[in-house]
Amino acid sequence: MKGKILMHMGPSVGNYRVTLAGVTENVGFASPEFISVMRESLDGVGEVMGAGSDYMPFIIPGSGTAAMESTVTFLRKGDRVLVLSNGVFGDRWSRIFERYPVKVDYLNARAGETVLPEDARKLASVNKYRLTVMTHVETSTGVRAPVRELIQSVRASSEIVAVDGVASVGGENVSAEEWDADIVLTASQKAIGAPPGLGLLVVRKSLLGVAGNDRISSFFLDLNNWAPVMQGMLDMKGGYFATPPISTIFSLREAFRLAKEEGLLKRIERHASAAGEIRSGVQELGLGIVAKDGLRSNTVTGVKLDGIDAAEFVRRCADRGVEFATGVHPELKGRYFRIGHMGWVTEIDVTAALGVIKQVLHEMH
Amino acid sequence: MKGKILMHMGPSVGNYRVTLAGVTENVGFASPEFISVMRESLDGVGEVMGAGSDYMPFIIPGSGTAAMESTVTFLRKGDRVLVLSNGVFGDRWSRIFERYPVKVDYLNARAGETVLPEDARKLASVNKYRLTVMTHVETSTGVRAPVRELIQSVRASSEIVAVDGVASVGGENVSAEEWDADIVLTASQKAIGAPPGLGLLVVRKSLLGVAGNDRISSFFLDLNNWAPVMQGMLDMKGGYFATPPISTIFSLREAFRLAKEEGLLKRIERHASAAGEIRSGVQELGLGIVAKDGLRSNTVTGVKLDGIDAAEFVRRCADRGVEFATGVHPELKGRYFRIGHMGWVTEIDVTAALGVIKQVLHEMH
Amino acid sequence: MKGKILMHMGPSVGNYRVTLAGVTENVGFASPEFISVMRESLDGVGEVMGAGSDYMPFIIPGSGTAAMESTVTFLRKGDRVLVLSNGVFGDRWSRIFERYPVKVDYLNARAGETVLPEDARKLASVNKYRLTVMTHVETSTGVRAPVRELIQSVRASSEIVAVDGVASVGGENVSAEEWDADIVLTASQKAIGAPPGLGLLVVRKSLLGVAGNDRISSFFLDLNNWAPVMQGMLDMKGGYFATPPISTIFSLREAFRLAKEEGLLKRIERHASAAGEIRSGVQELGLGIVAKDGLRSNTVTGVKLDGIDAAEFVRRCADRGVEFATGVHPELKGRYFRIGHMGWVTEIDVTAALGVIKQVLHEMH
Amino acid sequence: MKGKILMHMGPSVGNYRVTLAGVTENVGFASPEFISVMRESLDGVGEVMGAGSDYMPFIIPGSGTAAMESTVTFLRKGDRVLVLSNGVFGDRWSRIFERYPVKVDYLNARAGETVLPEDARKLASVNKYRLTVMTHVETSTGVRAPVRELIQSVRASSEIVAVDGVASVGGENVSAEEWDADIVLTASQKAIGAPPGLGLLVVRKSLLGVAGNDRISSFFLDLNNWAPVMQGMLDMKGGYFATPPISTIFSLREAFRLAKEEGLLKRIERHASAAGEIRSGVQELGLGIVAKDGLRSNTVTGVKLDGIDAAEFVRRCADRGVEFATGVHPELKGRYFRIGHMGWVTEIDVTAALGVIKQVLHEMH
Repeated sequence: MKGKILMHMGPSVGNYRVTLAGVTENVGFASPEFISVMRESLDGVGEVMGAGSDYMPFIIPGSGTAAMESTVTFLRKGDRVLVLSNGVFGDRWSRIFERYPVKVDYLNARAGETVLPEDARKLASVNKYRLTVMTHVETSTGVRAPVRELIQSVRASSEIVAVDGVASVGGENVSAEEWDADIVLTASQKAIGAPPGLGLLVVRKSLLGVAGNDRISSFFLDLNNWAPVMQGMLDMKGGYFATPPISTIFSLREAFRLAKEEGLLKRIERHASAAGEIRSGVQELGLGIVAKDGLRSNTVTGVKLDGIDAAEFVRRCADRGVEFATGVHPELKGRYFRIGHMGWVTEIDVTAALGVIKQVLHEMH
Repeated sequence: MKGKILMHMGPSVGNYRVTLAGVTENVGFASPEFISVMRESLDGVGEVMGAGSDYMPFIIPGSGTAAMESTVTFLRKGDRVLVLSNGVFGDRWSRIFERYPVKVDYLNARAGETVLPEDARKLASVNKYRLTVMTHVETSTGVRAPVRELIQSVRASSEIVAVDGVASVGGENVSAEEWDADIVLTASQKAIGAPPGLGLLVVRKSLLGVAGNDRISSFFLDLNNWAPVMQGMLDMKGGYFATPPISTIFSLREAFRLAKEEGLLKRIERHASAAGEIRSGVQELGLGIVAKDGLRSNTVTGVKLDGIDAAEFVRRCADRGVEFATGVHPELKGRYFRIGHMGWVTEIDVTAALGVIKQVLHEMH
Repeated sequence: MKGKILMHMGPSVGNYRVTLAGVTENVGFASPEFISVMRESLDGVGEVMGAGSDYMPFIIPGSGTAAMESTVTFLRKGDRVLVLSNGVFGDRWSRIFERYPVKVDYLNARAGETVLPEDARKLASVNKYRLTVMTHVETSTGVRAPVRELIQSVRASSEIVAVDGVASVGGENVSAEEWDADIVLTASQKAIGAPPGLGLLVVRKSLLGVAGNDRISSFFLDLNNWAPVMQGMLDMKGGYFATPPISTIFSLREAFRLAKEEGLLKRIERHASAAGEIRSGVQELGLGIVAKDGLRSNTVTGVKLDGIDAAEFVRRCADRGVEFATGVHPELKGRYFRIGHMGWVTEIDVTAALGVIKQVLHEMH
Repeated sequence: MKGKILMHMGPSVGNYRVTLAGVTENVGFASPEFISVMRESLDGVGEVMGAGSDYMPFIIPGSGTAAMESTVTFLRKGDRVLVLSNGVFGDRWSRIFERYPVKVDYLNARAGETVLPEDARKLASVNKYRLTVMTHVETSTGVRAPVRELIQSVRASSEIVAVDGVASVGGENVSAEEWDADIVLTASQKAIGAPPGLGLLVVRKSLLGVAGNDRISSFFLDLNNWAPVMQGMLDMKGGYFATPPISTIFSLREAFRLAKEEGLLKRIERHASAAGEIRSGVQELGLGIVAKDGLRSNTVTGVKLDGIDAAEFVRRCADRGVEFATGVHPELKGRYFRIGHMGWVTEIDVTAALGVIKQVLHEMH
């Protein structure tokens, strides 16, 4: 029997009370109980993303990647798209758009760094974009991008701006409205702390409803197919396009309730405080942080492990009860590991994690 | 306080022990515990679809519709597709394919009936198809199509044959291998009786791995992106493409375990027996069945309600504790209701449902 | 796979959401979370028994029998006790008191009937009693005694009056205060609908605190050992005598919450209505009721089965998904069965139960 | 939101999967499912106490104290009882027996020490005892008594020997048979790691069945009332005396299953190893252990806190996420705290607990 603290990326520190809330038996997508849970959850999506009544919230079956790809709803053949990438998950935007008949411009940064607003601005002064996309917190490195400045730098030249908040929403300040973002998206299982299985988005309402024969998106991921369902749920009338993950949405509602009890600001402070303790703890042990100072997120910390086999390090930590993630950024692969401190992370998890890191470092030196 | 039996379409009769199995806290997609649950679940997918080692099983985040659309993985620009539709969910195939640069031929049947093998054969004698698709049990009417005969009728002219088993797998005899189907797909929440949130497929392995620049599928729904993950799970090594719905997959594993305990054949007999009792019960009450004799499924029964307001009927039954679904087939809308007797349906549910139907009929006459 | 509706005596119709509320991990008897659950539950005990601030509520580990025996707290050597028994569970009072150095007078009734107030009054005119005990609803027959009248008939001659409300509290009108009862007790698992494991009591405060060397009760069941713990919980300070069943008390709290949501009066009406439907349903099938007219409870119905093997009848009903209890009253044993319609019983359970009774009667004739 | 590790006495480190196993809805005491769970649990009781076929296992509603008092089943008026006490819970034996018409001899030890076998032998050479009782691990100090030697020292003069294993069974080597103990008892919630609510015992079968008019035990706690029920469960026939805590017994079964998976010896080693780490960790921090060297248990550690307010220390640790127990032994009250490392304790809990102790010590100096 081994104890277990999950500080991986997906999900990270969990909460059995949240999954417990998903225990249902006689609830279908048309059951009044579900409709009311869905509405409350949609409200939660709006709140956690700082999106007011100009935005439509979405909860769709799938994952963060599904949510990313659903932005294709708003593209047409020949559109130009700008991708600002800080790592593996920024690059994923490119891999998505290359499936479609659109032109993709791509700016990227080195591991631990961010695309600079001035570089984005330069490109945006040359081209007009239908869509610009970026990543708030890059899961592969823990870098938090200056989203507000990046948006400002492209806003005038980009009809739509979408932010991937998969590793940030619930643990960082996120505000679609204040940022002037048209789309913010995330997944259920990271800092929101619900089980995986849902893509969550807010979309500026003015973008919706304009379908046509020239649409290029998939059928399942076409947000115009989902919008009437979301509206029906908000109106407590229900609706159907494809069966929603009922149990997972009950859990999501519970996660939003717990977040509300805690207070969204306190929740973000808790993440910031855990991140601070993690960073100072590993630095005291002589380890370096992947993300440059000023770019360090509340939710993910990449830690350099010079001279130590990262896979073996992660394995030994797991043996002692804390599951971290290995590094996946190609520039640094094998030379760092990642700590997810998202969702339900508390001080005692950090104390335990740092204790284990110390023990394993000691053991491997 | 009201009692509740769910005999809707999605999901139908549930089981809290199955959702309970999804209660987890410290399990990520890379946790050994999850990898082993995933492998066992993939094995379950193969078994319940009668697919041996020539097939790769898939569990993807989404729904039945996502699984349907993932068949686009195997299409290229200009391919010809044949859709055999017995109703609303057969038509959904067309709505999917019309998003892509392929030619769609479409055969359909009246409500309660099925496309005939001879009609399919005629069309297949004229054209060669990259893909032919059909629906085993049409959820909008309860019709069970003669899948084996339909496949035989097109097999020679169709490179790939895919069967939508959303409303059948787990409650009907399904055998990819014996049918000589290349793809069978379903969703987690119907006769398998797990929570919604997953598309499940088996795909003939020879179809996989042949990507190329001419692929037209979405990124998220490209089965070639998911195949290495499935293989990694089968090999107990894990893998990642997008975060899987971990809790739901724990529940799915439990559903497969319970199905195994029961015995797959007994499970199908139980569905057949519940269906038989439902049919004779409503017929004794003077009501007609939507599906023609010989085409009646084990899982869904459409019941005609001549002269009675179907929406009001369904509402009153819900008030008395049994939730049915209204009818959605355009030909009969408002004049029938549907009973889902899938998943964990037992004799006592049928007894209760028939008791309630009788009471409400009496009340409304 | 068999469906299942539980209409036995202990427990009866359950609710997995109530047991689910008992899922805890890190809660000890001194944890603030537990103390607050305990206080809320103690308030619930008072409310459901109609006991105001003159009464102390108790939640003790054990069962209804433990709660019955804890009344010995208030007896001393040589005390005289009057037992009014309507059946097996009334007789249990005698079996308890015969363990102690007290004199027991005993009045009883035939199966289906009740001790009459006038008979109790006669005895009480001859003797003075330290304690008179009676049973509100006799589980072995379903008889509901005229508790108010019985209490009045002995009140003048009995220092303490205790009512066993095991099969009534939560499903019948119970009011310690209005009845002028000194002690009312029950168990967690019957009409309150929590899991078994708890004895619940309200005790007039003036009885408490008077210990002494002449006490004869057991240590574990001495309510004077428990009273300071209950007071400590009510004061939110906690307390310890023996470890309380923490999980079960979380469930009990949930049961009280659901009862409050429903409304206590509505809850009692729901029981009355289920009982009425059960009675008219079995009478329509030609079966007789054990309890005489005017003495029929909301919670338990004994049904006569002349000419049919009761054990076999109960077995066949269980096979069809409804678990009833066989009869245990010696006068009628083998010739009746019992239906528990307590706790979370709803109309649809009654519909299903009557459907099954009809089927099995048909089968056995 | 605060994290939480429970290292109190009752219960200690828990496991939500065990409470989760208690989620039931339609299971009564006569349901076949319960009978089979009960049998498996009774087998578990025998195994974990090292009791073979000469012993009858018991699972009764209540607590450890109820189990202790049930030993009165075997006493008659005027019997002589020897109590060997190492602290508060040893003294509880005396408080129980003083309720009954028996003579109690009492030997005790100072805090942190144990009654010596030679002292017990001296007393036993003078008197014959019907019953000798002792405590394996004294919860108030963490002392583990030399039970084997103590039993040997009194065996010749004591007809019955009973061992309170409340704080040891499941975490220490316990063997009724090898010890030649007649009765070993425990509670469900300590090192076995199930929820509280059950007293567990094994009793030498030759003691059972000899009731009579001279019995002095309570009705509820008379093991002769429970024995036929236990035998009925072992025979898969069921039985009834008072309603058993069904949900808690489902959880107990799960705890036994997990213990079996782990292996009982490994489970005891895990407890020993956690205890060793706790002890060396607090000693490194300069703190003393209450129990004398050689008497330190696997399950409970009393830690001296000279010069620090123990209540405040415990409060601050709870604020940081680890709940310890204050000290209750009168000799040392206010000057020590207790760590429960029982049940599901793992290395990572110990790491976290020691981290928190260090932080709070630092803060309070």
